[in-house]
Amino acid sequence: MGMSVSHRLTDIAAQLGGRVLGDGEVRVAQIATLENAQPHHISFLTNSKYRAQLAGTRAGAVILGEADAEATGLPRIISDNPYAYFAKVSALLNPLPEARPGIHPAAIVGAGAKIDATASIAATAVIGENATIGAHSVIGEGCCIGANVVIGSHARLYPHVVIYHGCVIGDNLIAHAGSVIGSDGFGIAMDEGRWINIPQIGRVVIGNDVEIGANTTIDRGALNDTVIEDGVKMDNQIQVAHNVRIGAHTAIAGCAGIAGSAVIGRYCLIGGGARILGHLQLADHVEIAAHTLVGKSIREAGAYAAIFPLAKQEDWRKNAVHLRHLDELSKRVKALERELETIKLETVERETLKGRES
Amino acid sequence: MGMSVSHRLTDIAAQLGGRVLGDGEVRVAQIATLENAQPHHISFLTNSKYRAQLAGTRAGAVILGEADAEATGLPRIISDNPYAYFAKVSALLNPLPEARPGIHPAAIVGAGAKIDATASIAATAVIGENATIGAHSVIGEGCCIGANVVIGSHARLYPHVVIYHGCVIGDNLIAHAGSVIGSDGFGIAMDEGRWINIPQIGRVVIGNDVEIGANTTIDRGALNDTVIEDGVKMDNQIQVAHNVRIGAHTAIAGCAGIAGSAVIGRYCLIGGGARILGHLQLADHVEIAAHTLVGKSIREAGAYAAIFPLAKQEDWRKNAVHLRHLDELSKRVKALERELETIKLETVERETLKGRES
Amino acid sequence: MGMSVSHRLTDIAAQLGGRVLGDGEVRVAQIATLENAQPHHISFLTNSKYRAQLAGTRAGAVILGEADAEATGLPRIISDNPYAYFAKVSALLNPLPEARPGIHPAAIVGAGAKIDATASIAATAVIGENATIGAHSVIGEGCCIGANVVIGSHARLYPHVVIYHGCVIGDNLIAHAGSVIGSDGFGIAMDEGRWINIPQIGRVVIGNDVEIGANTTIDRGALNDTVIEDGVKMDNQIQVAHNVRIGAHTAIAGCAGIAGSAVIGRYCLIGGGARILGHLQLADHVEIAAHTLVGKSIREAGAYAAIFPLAKQEDWRKNAVHLRHLDELSKRVKALERELETIKLETVERETLKGRES
Repeated sequence: MGMSVSHRLTDIAAQLGGRVLGDGEVRVAQIATLENAQPHHISFLTNSKYRAQLAGTRAGAVILGEADAEATGLPRIISDNPYAYFAKVSALLNPLPEARPGIHPAAIVGAGAKIDATASIAATAVIGENATIGAHSVIGEGCCIGANVVIGSHARLYPHVVIYHGCVIGDNLIAHAGSVIGSDGFGIAMDEGRWINIPQIGRVVIGNDVEIGANTTIDRGALNDTVIEDGVKMDNQIQVAHNVRIGAHTAIAGCAGIAGSAVIGRYCLIGGGARILGHLQLADHVEIAAHTLVGKSIREAGAYAAIFPLAKQEDWRKNAVHLRHLDELSKRVKALERELETIKLETVERETLKGRES
Repeated sequence: MGMSVSHRLTDIAAQLGGRVLGDGEVRVAQIATLENAQPHHISFLTNSKYRAQLAGTRAGAVILGEADAEATGLPRIISDNPYAYFAKVSALLNPLPEARPGIHPAAIVGAGAKIDATASIAATAVIGENATIGAHSVIGEGCCIGANVVIGSHARLYPHVVIYHGCVIGDNLIAHAGSVIGSDGFGIAMDEGRWINIPQIGRVVIGNDVEIGANTTIDRGALNDTVIEDGVKMDNQIQVAHNVRIGAHTAIAGCAGIAGSAVIGRYCLIGGGARILGHLQLADHVEIAAHTLVGKSIREAGAYAAIFPLAKQEDWRKNAVHLRHLDELSKRVKALERELETIKLETVERETLKGRES
Repeated sequence: MGMSVSHRLTDIAAQLGGRVLGDGEVRVAQIATLENAQPHHISFLTNSKYRAQLAGTRAGAVILGEADAEATGLPRIISDNPYAYFAKVSALLNPLPEARPGIHPAAIVGAGAKIDATASIAATAVIGENATIGAHSVIGEGCCIGANVVIGSHARLYPHVVIYHGCVIGDNLIAHAGSVIGSDGFGIAMDEGRWINIPQIGRVVIGNDVEIGANTTIDRGALNDTVIEDGVKMDNQIQVAHNVRIGAHTAIAGCAGIAGSAVIGRYCLIGGGARILGHLQLADHVEIAAHTLVGKSIREAGAYAAIFPLAKQEDWRKNAVHLRHLDELSKRVKALERELETIKLETVERETLKGRES
């Protein structure tokens, strides 16, 4: 990342909060793990469990939680949330390169497009007719912004992002390379042996502070809109179908898929490769494990999973075959229980009889 | 979608068929759900189960099936297939914007390319040498059409579609942003501790009326071709490996993956995230549930599934652990059955003996 | 593939090794399957199991393993590894089209970029500032190479590959259309009800002889680098998260996903759609079945699987429901075993008693 400007601990704390212990005059220029840090690095411990790693670090300073405040003699900043503090320090030490404002001569801009003077439009980007690009937004190489799209301020679109016509996006969007916003939803109707397409006339509407990973796709709505609320964070290669609504501050890991008209709550965590079927609803604060199919609505916050346990292939084969007969196995157990009950009753009867006989 | 031209019900029925009941002079300009419709909207009911929703709608007119013909007094069109009728009305009210014929000055066209005069080639699109683009086809921004590719008439390629050299495509293709057609199949051979690549010299051959979703990939064949038959509809982020054949009018939902040389029948429905292993065959009219792995050929039409049922994480953990011992559990049940049989036999013997004794 | 130059069998063997049997003067111009081959084709048999197919082939020559050397009278080349030999013959007969060296006038090259005179930069490609492109490397249409990226020699980037700033790539890279290298890892920290981003300051570092499939994504590291070692082969739509390390000569099938900081060994085979959770370690020579979630580290070479067996939907439903009660079922079997044990003990006691009584 080239050379970073160094900062004194006291200056960092003045800007980001937290409490300095030890020599606040120490200067740090970059962030690193405890293991890799050098004297010009600041490092961090976010879990007391790894406290032992503090001993060997060569870091010039560390970020610690209150519980670990005295776990080292190194210059340090104490924070209630050392992980978030680490993120903020890293952002301070690694500011995004400034994009040059203005429209590259090899960009193509449609009639009526409104591009803020502070925005940056890269070479080979294409801005559609009547599109709006807000202040300080950066549109990367090869991006295609459709007609009438509205993008707020401080957006950062990496190369090759495609946004279809009419979509509306808030401030601070981050969209990584190859992501597609507003493609047609998958709407087809069978008509005399042939599929016919259902026009997708809704839009994608995205709030503020949303991040969209590389090659992620978000389809436009069929009649109403697909909606991504504020603060939603999406990893790479996620598929969001038409008319989905994703609640604010939900985070979705890579390769997850959300089928049409599903409604995901706020502050949910969706694991990698998870699938949410269409028209389902997930409550707020629902956590879905990786590679899990959600086939019914979830009304209650909490963690959910549906994963086949890993095994050596020969063990898997031996065990999995019985899944085809689990209903039968269950019935056989039921039958055994009944028979045993009968035997016990008969024994009791016999004993009683014997008791009478004797 | 801007302003639509309004249509009289009788004019719609004259064009699309169906039977008008009530005031046929009513004009509608757009389509909407029963819930959201306003008086200038036409709405639709495709399932009698939701008939109650008809009562509250503000729609100016509705599309209904025969069974619901008298379920409302609103102006209405009656159709045998109200869902397909809805699709057709929506297409009538929402015609695709006309693309301007001609080659944008910022497009790059290779030597010998044959581009129909009615076709439209957008800025930054690249057309390879000797490629053919049919009448009324639209090639979006940044599309790359390889050398010798043939694309029929009325294709609509959204931005950033890549078609590798030599692929052949019928009429009416719809290909969404970021889709890739004709990339090399994944063919490798181990040679003294290193993988060597097997040249992929087949093509992708696509019939008429095919739709390909955003960021979907279809690999070219290794020796023979990969074939997509007429009327196949594919959602986003689908992976089709080399030498696959997909039968006519099969529909595939997002994130599905089809491994090499699999042959899928006609009129199949493949659920989202489903996986079909290589060299398998699926009969016509097979339906695969979402997130299901198909690990053997399916010879018979019907619906198939393989999904782990969702549970709260703690319940999942408690139950899933037994899958590692299902074979043992099954054997224990078998042992119990044998022992119980023995006990019953002994009891019968004892009773018989007792009967004789007494 | 147009017309190929024909080669004599003896010339092929002189170049690639192997032993010619029969008429070595026979000329072949292309490779084909036994079923489709014509007299100007060379075909191949890689598995003795299919030896019967040799009888009907019209091929002019065939490639065979030692065990099948005498299974036909056709002109033939005998090899220890006929599958690898087939790959090499196909590469000989199907050389990649030569790209014209030089920079297309419609490419955009940033200040300070070092592009070898033998490299080829296609129209609409964008090369970032201070990037390095090695000898004989081909950068396809619309590719975006970020600032300070280093690409070795003989790379072949198909259209629309995006490589973010600072990534370092060895020789002989093949990257298919739409692949993304070096996008930000998915690093977020919760701070007072909002996610904040953790800057991703690592790079992607790729060895020699690596292949990356269409629309595959490889994220840059958070603090340290994401590393792909020599000879790794990746199919389409694979997701590799930040700080993953993939060992040399590992092959990964389409749609697989590898979560953050996972370390995959050398010579592993990862099946299509498989998922490896974060921070896990896989030993060398581990094979993961398709659609399998790996939720714990694997220390031992071998094949592993976790797949729900396919069934007709009604059978699946009937059986799968019991998975929610497997723990209970297991306990019921345990209870039955205990009760049966008790009954057997009682019977023994009774019999003993009876023995004493009589």
